[in-house]
Amino acid sequence: MLNRRHFCQNAIGLTWATSQTSHFAFGQTAEPNPGLSLWNEGPAKKAILDFVSRVTTEGSQDYVSPTNRIAVFDNDGTLWNEQPMYIQLAFALDRVKAMAATQPEWKNAEPFRSALAGDMKALAANGEKGLVELLMATHTGNTPEQFARIVEEWLSTAKHPRFQQPYTACVYIPMVQLLAFLRKNQFKTFIVSGGGVEFVRVFSERVYGVPPHQVVGTTIKTRYEERQGIPTLVRLPEIDFIDDKAGKPVAIQKFIGRRPTMAFGNSDGDFEMLAWTMAGTGPRFGMLLHHTDPKREYAYDCASAFGKLDKALEEAPKRGWVLAQTGTDFRKVFAFDSQS
Amino acid sequence: MLNRRHFCQNAIGLTWATSQTSHFAFGQTAEPNPGLSLWNEGPAKKAILDFVSRVTTEGSQDYVSPTNRIAVFDNDGTLWNEQPMYIQLAFALDRVKAMAATQPEWKNAEPFRSALAGDMKALAANGEKGLVELLMATHTGNTPEQFARIVEEWLSTAKHPRFQQPYTACVYIPMVQLLAFLRKNQFKTFIVSGGGVEFVRVFSERVYGVPPHQVVGTTIKTRYEERQGIPTLVRLPEIDFIDDKAGKPVAIQKFIGRRPTMAFGNSDGDFEMLAWTMAGTGPRFGMLLHHTDPKREYAYDCASAFGKLDKALEEAPKRGWVLAQTGTDFRKVFAFDSQS
Repeated sequence: MLNRRHFCQNAIGLTWATSQTSHFAFGQTAEPNPGLSLWNEGPAKKAILDFVSRVTTEGSQDYVSPTNRIAVFDNDGTLWNEQPMYIQLAFALDRVKAMAATQPEWKNAEPFRSALAGDMKALAANGEKGLVELLMATHTGNTPEQFARIVEEWLSTAKHPRFQQPYTACVYIPMVQLLAFLRKNQFKTFIVSGGGVEFVRVFSERVYGVPPHQVVGTTIKTRYEERQGIPTLVRLPEIDFIDDKAGKPVAIQKFIGRRPTMAFGNSDGDFEMLAWTMAGTGPRFGMLLHHTDPKREYAYDCASAFGKLDKALEEAPKRGWVLAQTGTDFRKVFAFDSQS
Repeated sequence: MLNRRHFCQNAIGLTWATSQTSHFAFGQTAEPNPGLSLWNEGPAKKAILDFVSRVTTEGSQDYVSPTNRIAVFDNDGTLWNEQPMYIQLAFALDRVKAMAATQPEWKNAEPFRSALAGDMKALAANGEKGLVELLMATHTGNTPEQFARIVEEWLSTAKHPRFQQPYTACVYIPMVQLLAFLRKNQFKTFIVSGGGVEFVRVFSERVYGVPPHQVVGTTIKTRYEERQGIPTLVRLPEIDFIDDKAGKPVAIQKFIGRRPTMAFGNSDGDFEMLAWTMAGTGPRFGMLLHHTDPKREYAYDCASAFGKLDKALEEAPKRGWVLAQTGTDFRKVFAFDSQS
């Protein structure tokens, strides 16, 4: 493998793509596993199948009882697209536009002015504080049911700017198939997302087969009150917990209460989740998805504004994390891809 | 029904016990439902069976799809005993004794001095602040795995002072049967406890059949760090969220992400959980368990230091919550009861 820094500076996916073609021999002769038919034969698929076989074979020394089979998945960039920006940010920007008529002061106030102008550079200049302000203004002040309806409506009309498909069609179908494959092998599948938990829950069951209570994510404070005698939850404009980076293992422990057996991520935001998963006793599996397919999707890593992948890519080989690439490991990326 | 205040002032369970005997006619002729054989025939059992039948009958206008069948249960006083004190408090007091040798300063410092002396009155005089201090000192500074092992060891030796049984035997078996009955009817069963989530998770799967990720409870702050290169979670002596009273619906939304179909509680701490559950559209079921059996267990409500039941008992009839009584509705209370 070429020097890692060199690789990242060049920002091309060729290095591994090349190094992995030799492994294709694995699958050329063997029958493709029907459970992962959307994965090309290669080391990533083989690693998954081998691991699942080991932990589900009774009598094997690596056997894991079904009750302990926990698999966690990052969402943005691991289960669905995150370029040219996080989909939840696209939602927030559309919400700013939709709400602007009733918020005339936004025309002259940052970060709303930049958001309304679609000026992403100026928006970025407002930093994380500006981003949080934007999210709070567009996501709160309602009940969880009202918020879910707003997201649902937006998802039913909004389209990805490049693919011109609904965002819920911009999910990586080999990963969706993997979720189902793991569940068939009695794994419980969880999403552990830096995105808002109530945002992801709107579509998680329909799109991924993951029920709301198996979605862990960033939370905002919520207050219970009786409104004119009606028990109500109100979403407050205040962050409760950010489920990213070192927050991910903390949230996994809080929500799931067990260290996962398998963890899947694609960015430095997943580093601690992968590291903590792999530090458990007994068999553990960590996979890092690298986006290396500019044609069918995007190629990005260390220089990306969204889903930055630098430290995790550097550390993956040392820590025994399996590397998968969208370019070579995914037979199809999206369901709407014409190639099969 | 007698005047509620009068009832509570007299603190006897006779009023409802008497009013409910007339309903026994229901069950005397019908075959007892094998699914709830540990419940006596009566209005509480009938209400549960009728409701479950309605929401699980396809084509019924009250049909609820399996994915939306969520049942939440309080733990202390609803699933297991909470007298003469919360079991987790008994654990904390035993921990103080076990840790005292390495904490000589506790001898002269409240609330530890009172805890070591077993002086419950003085301990109560320290108020909630003292209680939290006691819990933090005995529950934190370790990893989740270490804490779970400590709880596990304690549960394997400690005994209930009156029943002389392990605490995990002091669970209400009609309620355990109800959990299983609901799961058989494709409900997902959750515990929503004011107790510490990591405390309850230690025994929830083994005792109740409820896996750790379906336990919601009070949480403390936890920090991720690499300790000598090993990814580690450390439990910090700081409350994160108290899952009691108005906190319960908030935590249900945060952890489960759906309003429950059924809710079961036994104290004023469950009021908001029951109220919010019942305020949902479509069929909803709320049940309040009243402890009215001083012989087999305890009789308590409004005047109790643990599991105080006052406002919820007052409001239950007005709000359509079903009332159940340990004295008349439970065929057996504990598995070790000799009566059958």
